[in-house]
Amino acid sequence: MLEYLESLPLVDHHCHGVLDRDLGRETFEESLTEAETAGPPGVSMFDTQVGFALRRWCPPVLGLDAHAEPDAYLERRAELGAAEVNRRFLRAARLETLCVDAGYGPGGMLGPPELGRLAGARGHEIVRLETLAEQVAADGVDAARFAGEVRSRLDAQNAVGAKSVAAYRAGLELAGERPSGPEVAAAAGRLMAQDRPRVCDEVLHRFLVFCAVDAGLPVQFHVGYGDVDADLRRGDPLLLIELLRAMDPVPAMLLHNYPFHRHAGYLAQVLPNVYVDAGLATHNLGYRAPALIAELLELAPFGKVLYSSDAFGLAELYHLGALLFRRGLAGFLAGGADDGAWTAGDAERVAALIASGNARRVYGI
Amino acid sequence: MLEYLESLPLVDHHCHGVLDRDLGRETFEESLTEAETAGPPGVSMFDTQVGFALRRWCPPVLGLDAHAEPDAYLERRAELGAAEVNRRFLRAARLETLCVDAGYGPGGMLGPPELGRLAGARGHEIVRLETLAEQVAADGVDAARFAGEVRSRLDAQNAVGAKSVAAYRAGLELAGERPSGPEVAAAAGRLMAQDRPRVCDEVLHRFLVFCAVDAGLPVQFHVGYGDVDADLRRGDPLLLIELLRAMDPVPAMLLHNYPFHRHAGYLAQVLPNVYVDAGLATHNLGYRAPALIAELLELAPFGKVLYSSDAFGLAELYHLGALLFRRGLAGFLAGGADDGAWTAGDAERVAALIASGNARRVYGI
Amino acid sequence: MLEYLESLPLVDHHCHGVLDRDLGRETFEESLTEAETAGPPGVSMFDTQVGFALRRWCPPVLGLDAHAEPDAYLERRAELGAAEVNRRFLRAARLETLCVDAGYGPGGMLGPPELGRLAGARGHEIVRLETLAEQVAADGVDAARFAGEVRSRLDAQNAVGAKSVAAYRAGLELAGERPSGPEVAAAAGRLMAQDRPRVCDEVLHRFLVFCAVDAGLPVQFHVGYGDVDADLRRGDPLLLIELLRAMDPVPAMLLHNYPFHRHAGYLAQVLPNVYVDAGLATHNLGYRAPALIAELLELAPFGKVLYSSDAFGLAELYHLGALLFRRGLAGFLAGGADDGAWTAGDAERVAALIASGNARRVYGI
Repeated sequence: MLEYLESLPLVDHHCHGVLDRDLGRETFEESLTEAETAGPPGVSMFDTQVGFALRRWCPPVLGLDAHAEPDAYLERRAELGAAEVNRRFLRAARLETLCVDAGYGPGGMLGPPELGRLAGARGHEIVRLETLAEQVAADGVDAARFAGEVRSRLDAQNAVGAKSVAAYRAGLELAGERPSGPEVAAAAGRLMAQDRPRVCDEVLHRFLVFCAVDAGLPVQFHVGYGDVDADLRRGDPLLLIELLRAMDPVPAMLLHNYPFHRHAGYLAQVLPNVYVDAGLATHNLGYRAPALIAELLELAPFGKVLYSSDAFGLAELYHLGALLFRRGLAGFLAGGADDGAWTAGDAERVAALIASGNARRVYGI
Repeated sequence: MLEYLESLPLVDHHCHGVLDRDLGRETFEESLTEAETAGPPGVSMFDTQVGFALRRWCPPVLGLDAHAEPDAYLERRAELGAAEVNRRFLRAARLETLCVDAGYGPGGMLGPPELGRLAGARGHEIVRLETLAEQVAADGVDAARFAGEVRSRLDAQNAVGAKSVAAYRAGLELAGERPSGPEVAAAAGRLMAQDRPRVCDEVLHRFLVFCAVDAGLPVQFHVGYGDVDADLRRGDPLLLIELLRAMDPVPAMLLHNYPFHRHAGYLAQVLPNVYVDAGLATHNLGYRAPALIAELLELAPFGKVLYSSDAFGLAELYHLGALLFRRGLAGFLAGGADDGAWTAGDAERVAALIASGNARRVYGI
Repeated sequence: MLEYLESLPLVDHHCHGVLDRDLGRETFEESLTEAETAGPPGVSMFDTQVGFALRRWCPPVLGLDAHAEPDAYLERRAELGAAEVNRRFLRAARLETLCVDAGYGPGGMLGPPELGRLAGARGHEIVRLETLAEQVAADGVDAARFAGEVRSRLDAQNAVGAKSVAAYRAGLELAGERPSGPEVAAAAGRLMAQDRPRVCDEVLHRFLVFCAVDAGLPVQFHVGYGDVDADLRRGDPLLLIELLRAMDPVPAMLLHNYPFHRHAGYLAQVLPNVYVDAGLATHNLGYRAPALIAELLELAPFGKVLYSSDAFGLAELYHLGALLFRRGLAGFLAGGADDGAWTAGDAERVAALIASGNARRVYGI
């Protein structure tokens, strides 16, 4: 089963850019997890599930033995240089397609085309709705024309999907009704009155989702696990149920989901247009990723589960996401086949759906 | 251990009627999970845990090989006819008693006596409180006499328990106080003013629970997992804690519970009158049912855990519920005995409690 | 790995006093779980995970065979007497240090020095903030001087940490701002107007936490699982995020956490000053404790996980907590080493951190 999954190129339907420069230990540790810092004195971010997964699987890609010590690993990384390191890990992930949210990140990040080239894969763009709206606001437009301008820029983007980060801002408790034109114009006015426009308003998040819906774009939602700005309380996908229902039949892609992945699996079962993944959490859970994958696959129909890495910054994360996903899913499906829960043939068919078939169907790529 | 559990007839303390007619593929897929539809294009509800569990365990009951393809299975099903199919699966479940909530369902459903006959088991009735109240309202009664009429019909029902579907309507955040007479009369007035009376009012849900409490009937609560109408946010059993406390010593039976089954287990431990099951979720989780059973048995005292299928419509679900419960519980108890966590004798004693003893004691059947 | 962990004395960073008298069966069953009573007719608290764990591991310490029946066990317990029983179990736990919350409990409980002597370990005190405030209020002080008096008694306590039971009172949704002097004085006035002052006011809980922060004391928070007074709804650690952030860099120790242990692990990853344990739940889950430990170790950095028993009353619980923790952690780390997730050397290093190193570093003991 693992061999079979290793032979299948993946569609990574949600990832970010990679840092195109060499990294010191502190920056590297800061980039490894969702913590903002490398840890208080005495606490190393290498002593985490993702840290141990990295030390197990990444050193061999750079020509070191598995379980290399952090300093030795970072020394070797610096020796090879960011370009070579990025190329090796992106290739090692064996991807067919990447869908890249390029709407957030510091300078020195590679965008979809460069990422695709490095990975030997097609690179598509996912447009981050709040970023697009903030650019419209920053460019200055009459509040009454804000909505039209957002829609026309969205159409011009040539993206395969859109993404909402409402979970990081107003939270996921978004209503199911389309906001009216005057509501949007009023909210746009408030947005543009800010020095540095930042969308954090239930009306605008919702308006943006409906813009993507009207454009027929699948909408990715950040759900659950993320950095501390996310306020996990407001990131439970159950809060989003009314809007999810209102979006039908346009697909809603619930990203990450941990620790609410069972809630997400429920939504994927009961709502026809809801899809789920376990990106970000898969590599952060490392040795425990198989438990997460098994829990996600409790209620979610197998035709509605996708792969994503949600990798950001470190090239290692594209590789770890893909590797831990392949191993976790293979172990799960092989375990079921050994137990008699399904045939080997069905297991391979399901593996192909989750690895790439579901994503190709939903995004039309 | 599995042999021992297979020798024990079960009390299924919460199930519904079975459809008494042949079913096409779309209707069958719609009935298989809690989704309202058979899935968007490209998604089959057979590609789910319950779908694979069905293909593994059900074809042999109809004389086919395990893992038959869906179409071949449905062809064979049609060939045998609904009556024979229903008979075979109900028998295969090996039940001692069924407690049937007959308060919901389309036409063509079999009620408690017919179900019992098919299963070779005793059939008892669970009265659905909201349905009873809606019938009283539809029949037309003075608002001031509504409460008395509800109570007298409840007494006349000869039911072994009552059921509240507050989770589907006003949600589980019900207060612990008895509503006053004038509060009930006012709410009854509002109910009867509706064209098609539908209970969806915190006061009425609560009033109905206290009617059952006063009649000394154990009250089943829909909790957690169910179809999309349930709004899972409001189905967390922790919301119900005040009413659960106020009901003591009348038993409160928390049904389904997934994904809040650990919350339910906690309540079963700390509140003397609270009992739990994992109905509906057990067959929907299929190959993963053992994980659910193990999590339910973390805090819940073993004397407070019951079996139910929550089967509805498809005869297969009575069989799958019972089979997956027996296998999951047997695996759990045998694993513990092998590890030395308990003796084989204690494991058998606990199995008998959960299979039927607890239900017999609580319902007095 | 288990041998290695058995060789490591533990720091039990959160426990309570032990009952210094002989116990009948009913009192014993009442003390075994978080239920207030020994169970309704037909339900024995011995038929629980903790009950079976006790019957497996505790009889041999008293010279009986494993799996002794409850009555035989209690007879032997009475024969030996409370003093001898307490001594045996406290020794069996093999502790290096106990941090004792002595702020709650009926008479006949042993305090930190006696507990330490019995255990052959150092005993430190954790000051329960609400108890301290209630004593100040009961002693009578001018509302304007309440704050100063609390601070000076806190300084005089020679404790290594403080504890908040806000989860049992106003709930964990505490704001991140320091309450102002007038706010505290007003709340103190209301507290002192009560016949038996009981802190149950968001302002006071928060004020007390900031008193501990200003004194540089790590603050333990009751989170999640506890007796029925806790109202689990308000015990989700995600509710506390603003105050946790405001406390930085003073350590916040999230206790128990079940069933929100994944939420707690998330907080431990993303907030630099947050630490976690699985006390109370570890022994209550018995045979399932390994699953809990594995889930806690998903996101929490291994340098931020501690051991505690949260034992209260029964001497057995100190032993069971330590034993189940050692076995669960050893199994987890050995499983990972066998799988190649980490080296045996790293596994031992991590074991030592969690067993005692993290606690020594955070509390400075």
